[in-house]
Amino acid sequence: MSVTRPGGFRASGVVAALKSTGARDLALVVNDGPRHSAAAVFTSNRAKANPVIWSQQVIADGRVEAIVLNSGGANCFTGSFGFQTTHATAEAVAGALEISAGDVLVCSTGLIGVGDQIFRDKIVDSVPAAAAALSAAVEGGADAAAAIMTTDSHPKEAVAVSPAGWSIGGMAKGAGMLAPGLATMLVVITTDADLESPVLDRALRAATRVTFDRVDSDGCMSTNDTVALLASGASGVVADEAEFTEALTALCLDLALQLQADAEGASHDIAIEVVNAATEDDAVVVGRSVSRSNLLKAAIFGNDPNWGRVLAALGTTDAVFDPYLIDVSMNGVMVCRAGEPGDDRELVDLTPRACHILIDLKSGDAAATIYTNDLTHEYVHENSAYAS
Amino acid sequence: MSVTRPGGFRASGVVAALKSTGARDLALVVNDGPRHSAAAVFTSNRAKANPVIWSQQVIADGRVEAIVLNSGGANCFTGSFGFQTTHATAEAVAGALEISAGDVLVCSTGLIGVGDQIFRDKIVDSVPAAAAALSAAVEGGADAAAAIMTTDSHPKEAVAVSPAGWSIGGMAKGAGMLAPGLATMLVVITTDADLESPVLDRALRAATRVTFDRVDSDGCMSTNDTVALLASGASGVVADEAEFTEALTALCLDLALQLQADAEGASHDIAIEVVNAATEDDAVVVGRSVSRSNLLKAAIFGNDPNWGRVLAALGTTDAVFDPYLIDVSMNGVMVCRAGEPGDDRELVDLTPRACHILIDLKSGDAAATIYTNDLTHEYVHENSAYAS
Repeated sequence: MSVTRPGGFRASGVVAALKSTGARDLALVVNDGPRHSAAAVFTSNRAKANPVIWSQQVIADGRVEAIVLNSGGANCFTGSFGFQTTHATAEAVAGALEISAGDVLVCSTGLIGVGDQIFRDKIVDSVPAAAAALSAAVEGGADAAAAIMTTDSHPKEAVAVSPAGWSIGGMAKGAGMLAPGLATMLVVITTDADLESPVLDRALRAATRVTFDRVDSDGCMSTNDTVALLASGASGVVADEAEFTEALTALCLDLALQLQADAEGASHDIAIEVVNAATEDDAVVVGRSVSRSNLLKAAIFGNDPNWGRVLAALGTTDAVFDPYLIDVSMNGVMVCRAGEPGDDRELVDLTPRACHILIDLKSGDAAATIYTNDLTHEYVHENSAYAS
Repeated sequence: MSVTRPGGFRASGVVAALKSTGARDLALVVNDGPRHSAAAVFTSNRAKANPVIWSQQVIADGRVEAIVLNSGGANCFTGSFGFQTTHATAEAVAGALEISAGDVLVCSTGLIGVGDQIFRDKIVDSVPAAAAALSAAVEGGADAAAAIMTTDSHPKEAVAVSPAGWSIGGMAKGAGMLAPGLATMLVVITTDADLESPVLDRALRAATRVTFDRVDSDGCMSTNDTVALLASGASGVVADEAEFTEALTALCLDLALQLQADAEGASHDIAIEVVNAATEDDAVVVGRSVSRSNLLKAAIFGNDPNWGRVLAALGTTDAVFDPYLIDVSMNGVMVCRAGEPGDDRELVDLTPRACHILIDLKSGDAAATIYTNDLTHEYVHENSAYAS
């Protein structure tokens, strides 16, 4: 159970026939209150999809009553017609729920450039069914989580429960184009904690900064990413902000690692841990540069501990370090010690799916971990055939 | 014929047994003068191989008598022992040719972390044979071009001849890790024009900036890249600087496109032409961001004109443009017009190896073209198996 675990929420997922497979493709999550505070973060890509442009306006006042999400088309680069489609979607939800369209977030995912009249009609015509199917039971959340999937192999859900009496639930989709600033990632998080939107906003930004923002599956940033956090206040408990942020961060990391584990075609989940950096930003920059080396990612796919490719990648950054003092360990074996060959690379076992690359910059005490995947035949295959 | 085409040069390529295949792996190019002026550009990677560190010192005075190059090991991240290996290599060449080691450029290519005593011995012991094999004939240049190959499928050579009486010859290696700032790219260019090193330096920087620096095969930057230009003055003709720069630029573009065409595992050569940019830098930034989208590159491999991935990539830059005004054409079909779906994507024929992506930013009159490749199963395969 996920978004319907906290009190005050109902959800549904129905078939709008946007997906050619006939699977669920339209999700609705409704906050029944008593509170309707919300926060959201969006892709930092300048090429923003119409639902992102719409939702940035909706979230401005910190109040959201419902969020509607579709897979089967990103409604991005579809012009003013596409924006009107998003507006029409929000109006349809508002009509069905008797609320204001200005309190309805909209999210879309799928192929860019898809958003024609047929697309619009399918969504708008299916909204009443989605509203009718709303349920506060486990099934409501599960159906919604299934409806937002694209190339995901399974739904992603997570729950956190506080002894103080409040809970958090979340669902996520995304299996490629996962990169900083969020990426082909739609996440809806609900809570029954009694919190106002400024608190939600602070907590959400703190949580996403060290979780979703540090997943860099393939270096590609999406046009549609949205992480929304809705609070119903139904528990009647005003959560401690620090405790709430900590629980939210753990839940976001859980969902982020579920995204990484389901990344398109990946055979390794790679955690690049950068330690003893001069600043956290430096650690992130170094980790990200390494996570974007196709040569390294292909080597990991081949179970080849090619540490030279780690050094070649981090040498392209302007972070503070001396490249000839760095230590690099792969799955516990220090293959590069102080910029020279270290322990025998043959000792490195890369057969497990989990791969840990530890980079010691010896330049300070800051650290960060970037989560990425290997580059595989399956990745190439899935992404060369996505549109067809 | 290539580096031995201009008067005043001899070259050779011999077997030092660095490559397990038994192919030629040690090349020598000697400038017999009367002039010995030179210029060179090197990788901008902070992780520089020992031969790069050495050669940057050698080139400082603008005088070079010989250049020795080996494949079969990059001598990078091999510590002070590796630097001493480079020094010993230069001394061996100096001894064989009765010149100063301070006038000998050294280049290495191959796996990072390789540079032990055996590696050193093989090179140093083979230098006399390389010196003995030096030839001003076509064969000398051809043997040298073959000896610097790693995963290249064939040698790359080019020649330019001026009616004014001077000529330029060049050889190159590189088949992956091709990225800005140069990348796993070793290039030696010779000329018998009578030019001093400051002129050579200006001409070389002007030429590489718009040729080798704009090849971005896989976004990975090497630790060893070197482009060296040696002038013998043997023609006795002082070339006009503008004419020489133009000829040199054309020759560098020829070699750069040969590198692109032989990129590891590629099935498409993609030219990303960005026009009507506010500045040339903007055009380069946009072109490079598109060239680094694994999603787009995989789509091109699958002959899929997925133009949304072009827009998703350029949206991550801070170049001047309005993403909703951009036109994108693929192989002559304007699939995106003013940020909306344009002509039918089914009209795009991506079956030819040559792929042209034209991006009109509508923000000025600057332009630049970035050369890249698609992302294929073969790329993944070759790079997952490189070390073994």
